[in-house]
Formats: sequence, C-alpha cells, structure tokens
Amino acid sequence: MKKIITVSREFGSGGRTIARQIAEKLNLAYYDKELVKQVATETGFHEDFVEQQGEYATSGNWFAYALSQRGGPLPNMLSADDFLWAIQRKVILEIAEKDEPCVIVGRCADYILRDRDDCLNIFIHAPMDARAERIVRLYGESDKPAEKRLEDKDKRRRLYYKRYTGRDWGISQNYHLSLDSQALGIENCVDIVSELFKKL
Amino acid sequence: MKKIITVSREFGSGGRTIARQIAEKLNLAYYDKELVKQVATETGFHEDFVEQQGEYATSGNWFAYALSQRGGPLPNMLSADDFLWAIQRKVILEIAEKDEPCVIVGRCADYILRDRDDCLNIFIHAPMDARAERIVRLYGESDKPAEKRLEDKDKRRRLYYKRYTGRDWGISQNYHLSLDSQALGIENCVDIVSELFKKL
Repeated sequence: MKKIITVSREFGSGGRTIARQIAEKLNLAYYDKELVKQVATETGFHEDFVEQQGEYATSGNWFAYALSQRGGPLPNMLSADDFLWAIQRKVILEIAEKDEPCVIVGRCADYILRDRDDCLNIFIHAPMDARAERIVRLYGESDKPAEKRLEDKDKRRRLYYKRYTGRDWGISQNYHLSLDSQALGIENCVDIVSELFKKL
Repeated sequence: MKKIITVSREFGSGGRTIARQIAEKLNLAYYDKELVKQVATETGFHEDFVEQQGEYATSGNWFAYALSQRGGPLPNMLSADDFLWAIQRKVILEIAEKDEPCVIVGRCADYILRDRDDCLNIFIHAPMDARAERIVRLYGESDKPAEKRLEDKDKRRRLYYKRYTGRDWGISQNYHLSLDSQALGIENCVDIVSELFKKL
C-alpha cells in the first residue's frame, strides 16, 4: 500500500504542475512551497534562499562548488548547504511520519525516504526544446538563452543530488516510474500516476 | 499517432514478458525472436550468436572489448559486431517501414528509430534482488551467483549501447516511459503502456 508520492522533475518539464494536479485528483496533502516555508522557519533562512540552495549546487563548476562547501578556516565547520540539507531532511522525515497520504515535490525526498516501502517515486522529464519553450512562456525571456539557463540548472541539480545522495540524477533505476511530459502530455502523466497510486 | 512500441529492458526485469503481453493485448505484431531469425538469415550467423552479440559487448572489460573490435592486421576491416549492427539496423528500419503497428524488443530500436515520431519508447527495469530471483527461477542456478551474472550482463549491455549509440544506457531521458516492474507489477506495466498507446 503506497501512501506517499515523491515527484522529482527536470526544471521546465511541468513536473510541479503534474504533482499538484495528482494531489488535487487524489485529494492528497501537497508539499512544495509549504515544505520550503517549514524549512525556512526552522533554519531562519529566507524562503528564496531555501528554494534555491535546497536543490541546487551554488555553482555548476564542480571545483568551485566543492570549495564553497569548505567550512572556512576551521575544520569540522558546517556549510550553510549542509545545515540546510540536515533540516530539510528532518522536515521531510517528519512529514512522512504523519498519518497523512501526500505528494512531496523535489528536495531529494525519493532518497531521503528510501527505506520506507510506502513511497511511489516519480521522475518527470522532457526534451530540451519543450522545456525551453515552457520556461520562456512561464518565466519570460532573460539575457541568457533558455537552453543555457536549463543546462546550468540541470548541472547544478545533478551536482547537488550527487553530493547529498551519492547517486546520479535522472537514472531510471532510482524511480518507480519516469515519464516524458512532452511525449505523453501533462494530462496522461497525471492520469497514469493517479490510477497507479489507487492500485498499489 | 504512435505506431511502434520499442521495449528496452534490464536482463531479468520481465521486460520481454511485458512486451509480449502488450503486443497480445493490443493485437500488434511482435518482433523479438522473429527479429533475431531475420538477422540470422541475412548474416548467415547462428541465431544464438545474433542473440548474444546483437545486444551485448563481448567482454565487460572496456579495453578488451575495444581491442576485440579491431578488424585485425588490415585497417578498415569490419568486425563481426559492426557487420551484425549494420544488418540489425537495416532489418529494424525495414520493419518500421512496413505499414504494420508493432512491438520491437531490445536491439537499440529506440535509438535506431529515433528520427520517427510514431514510436513510443519504453524501458523496463527492476531492483537487483528481484531480477536475481527471477533469473534463477527461469534459467536455473549456475556456478556464478545470480547477482554476478546480472552485473556482467548489465556491464556488457551498457558497453554495447554506448559503442553503437553514443548514449548512456538506462538514462530516463532516452525513453518516454520507464517502469520498475517489481514495484509496479507486470500487469500494471502492461496496462499502463497499452492504455497509453491507445490514447497517443
């Protein structure tokens, strides 16, 4: 019996929209901004900071990122990212402990809850051109081309995921179900996951 | 409108069973052993040789494999694997050209048919323990532990896929839908893909 749906997604794939619609359709609690808010409260960090640092490496450059994670001149100091990870992990474990079926978006919840057998882990992805079109439509143009913005986001998310989970991001084997939202369409993705959740 | 379903699968995941049941359910032509037979006829190679060499690198050792692919003392000679790949590719392209909806199992069909927009590309995987249990049940014990046999198969398939497609094997982004047959169950996998195919 599954109780929790974790939704990991590529930036611009529509994964968040799919997650929200699944929650609405199945009448499940939905943790996305709410989760960010809780982590912000517990850490004292600003929500925007939590939103960014809680899923993305500071830099897409591995060396610069590794350097930024050194605690400073004193050994054994915690970086802000490590502290954020610890609190985020705690909040996600607490949400899972509640007696409440729910959808959790991103934040490595698939990994953090890997020892539970009541999670259905979903990954939503889409081809680059579809994601580029989507982010320009939703967030507007910027001085960087959309593809460049996506490559940067992908790289930083991959680094972050590797650092805290030791796993490669986007590998099929990490998820129970991976869906291409462009080929399948948002509605089919929502239907497939909702129907499956009711059966498992 | 989708016309062809390609099913890539991890060894021992039940992917072949799922593919066959999808074909039966949707009443589609089914290319698996049939494809091997066609390639065997065109190359003159034995079916067992085609079955093995058409999806797996000869060795899981990258260097030994690369070496085995040298044509010999004369430059520009074709290795048996390269020849097999060329014929296999031709046969798959010809199958796709027929005016007949079908399911094609393995053999990099997802990559070979990448320029068509009427393919639904599926990947079936399962955790190591489930696959080990399955291959012992289906093929019996051998002197090597099941996990070792699977690791070797995975490695050789990954090498083969990389050599001929340039891609990493098992990456979500290569497929429209990736399913964990252990978590979802064979029947749910068949249902999800069949329903989706009818809608797309």
